[in-house]
Amino acid sequence: MSKPLPKALGFDVFGTVVDWRTSVARESRPYLDALGRQDIDAGEFADGWRARYGPSMRPVNAGEREFVVLDVLHRENLEDLLREHGIDPAEVGEETLAEWTLAWHRLDPWPDTVPGMNRLKRKFPLISLSNGNVAMMVAMSRHGGLPWDTILGAEFARYYKTHPQVYLAAAEALALAPAELCLVAAHHSDLAAARACGLTTAYIHRPDEHGGGSAPDAHAKQDWEWSAGSFTELADLLGCE
Amino acid sequence: MSKPLPKALGFDVFGTVVDWRTSVARESRPYLDALGRQDIDAGEFADGWRARYGPSMRPVNAGEREFVVLDVLHRENLEDLLREHGIDPAEVGEETLAEWTLAWHRLDPWPDTVPGMNRLKRKFPLISLSNGNVAMMVAMSRHGGLPWDTILGAEFARYYKTHPQVYLAAAEALALAPAELCLVAAHHSDLAAARACGLTTAYIHRPDEHGGGSAPDAHAKQDWEWSAGSFTELADLLGCE
Repeated sequence: MSKPLPKALGFDVFGTVVDWRTSVARESRPYLDALGRQDIDAGEFADGWRARYGPSMRPVNAGEREFVVLDVLHRENLEDLLREHGIDPAEVGEETLAEWTLAWHRLDPWPDTVPGMNRLKRKFPLISLSNGNVAMMVAMSRHGGLPWDTILGAEFARYYKTHPQVYLAAAEALALAPAELCLVAAHHSDLAAARACGLTTAYIHRPDEHGGGSAPDAHAKQDWEWSAGSFTELADLLGCE
Repeated sequence: MSKPLPKALGFDVFGTVVDWRTSVARESRPYLDALGRQDIDAGEFADGWRARYGPSMRPVNAGEREFVVLDVLHRENLEDLLREHGIDPAEVGEETLAEWTLAWHRLDPWPDTVPGMNRLKRKFPLISLSNGNVAMMVAMSRHGGLPWDTILGAEFARYYKTHPQVYLAAAEALALAPAELCLVAAHHSDLAAARACGLTTAYIHRPDEHGGGSAPDAHAKQDWEWSAGSFTELADLLGCE
C-alpha cells in the first residue's frame, strides 16, 4: 500500500463507536412511560434530543457562551424537548432529569466496535476525539468496554467539533503533525473539518445510525483516505492482525 | 469497613506507577557511553535529571512562564545537566537530544503495578493524575501496558502538581466531589496537597524509588486514609477481587 499509515487514530464516538439512537430510546422509554406518555415514540424522542445537539454547541464555538460540557447541554436540550411535548420539566423533578440526562453515558457499542478496537490498538494509540466530556466518556467506556488509550476532544480543547481547535489540539497533545493523526468517523462533516486541518481521514459507514433515516451531512462526502463498513474492516485495511 | 470507598482513583505516576530511576539510568547509559563518559554513574545522572524537575515547574505555577509540557522541561533540564558535566549540548546534536529526552516515555512499571491496576480497574475508574503530558503518558502506558481509563493531570489543568487546580480540575472533569476522588501516590507532599483540596488519599510505599536513597518529602507524612506496600495490597484494602 502506498498511503502512509497514521501514527494514531482519533475516533468520533456518537454514531461511529456507539449506537446512540437505540440506546437513548431504550433508556428513555421507562421515563416516558412513568410520565404516562406511551404515545411518544422513543426513537423519535432520541432523534429530537439529538437534533438539538448541533444548535446548542454553536454559541460556545462562536464565543457567545463560555464553554460548558456536553452533559450540561444534554440537560438543557432534554428540558427543551420535554416542553415541546407539553411536559413541564419542573414537574418531572430534579433527580429524574439528572438521571435521564445520563442516558448518554450508557450508549452501547456497535457489534464490531470492541473487536475492531482491540485489533487496532495493537498497532495504533486509540484516542477518543468526541464532543462528549470526560465523565461521560469514562462512564461510556466502562459500560461498553472501550479500550481507549486516552480521551481528548471538546473538553480538552474547550471548543466543540467541527471547530478546528479540537483537531489541532489533539494532534499537538499527541506530539504529532496533523497528517499523522487519522480521524475515524461516520460523518462526512466531521471528516471534512479534520481534513481542512491537515488530518488523515477514515470513513466508517453506519447506515443504522439514524434508524434507517438519511444522514444529515451526505452532501459533505469526499474521497477519504480509508473507507470501511466496520472497525474490523478498518483493522484489515490498516494491516492489523 | 467504615471508611467510604472512593468513586475513582487518580494516580501519581513517576515513582508510584513506574520506576523512573532504573529506567532513565538504563536509557541514558548508551548515550553517556557514546559520549565517552563511562565515568558518569547512570543512576546518579537520573537523579540529577530528576532533581531539576521541581525547580523547572515553579515558574509555570507562579505565573511567570506560560504553561509548557513536561517533555519541554525534560529537554531543558537534560541540557542543563549535560553542561554541569562539561558536555556542550550543541555537540551532542539535536536528534540525539530529542531521542534522549524520550527516555521518560519508556519507564517500566513496578512488578505489582499492572496486576494491581487490572484488579483495581474492575471496581474503580483509573485516572492518570501525573505531571507528564499526554504524549508521554500514552507512550508510557503502551510501553508498560497500563490500563488507564483516561489521562488527566498537568496538561489538562495547565498547572503542575502540587498546584491545587490540578486536583480540583480532575475531580470536576470526572463529575465528582473532591472527596470522591482518591489520589494514589508514593509521595507525602503530593498527598498533602490533594488532601488540602478535599481529596481522599492512598499512600504507596516505594522504598526503591530513589535507589535506596531517602525520599525528599518524608517530613510531610500524615495519617493517610489508606496505606499499602503495593498496588495489589491496595486492591486488597479496597475490596477488589
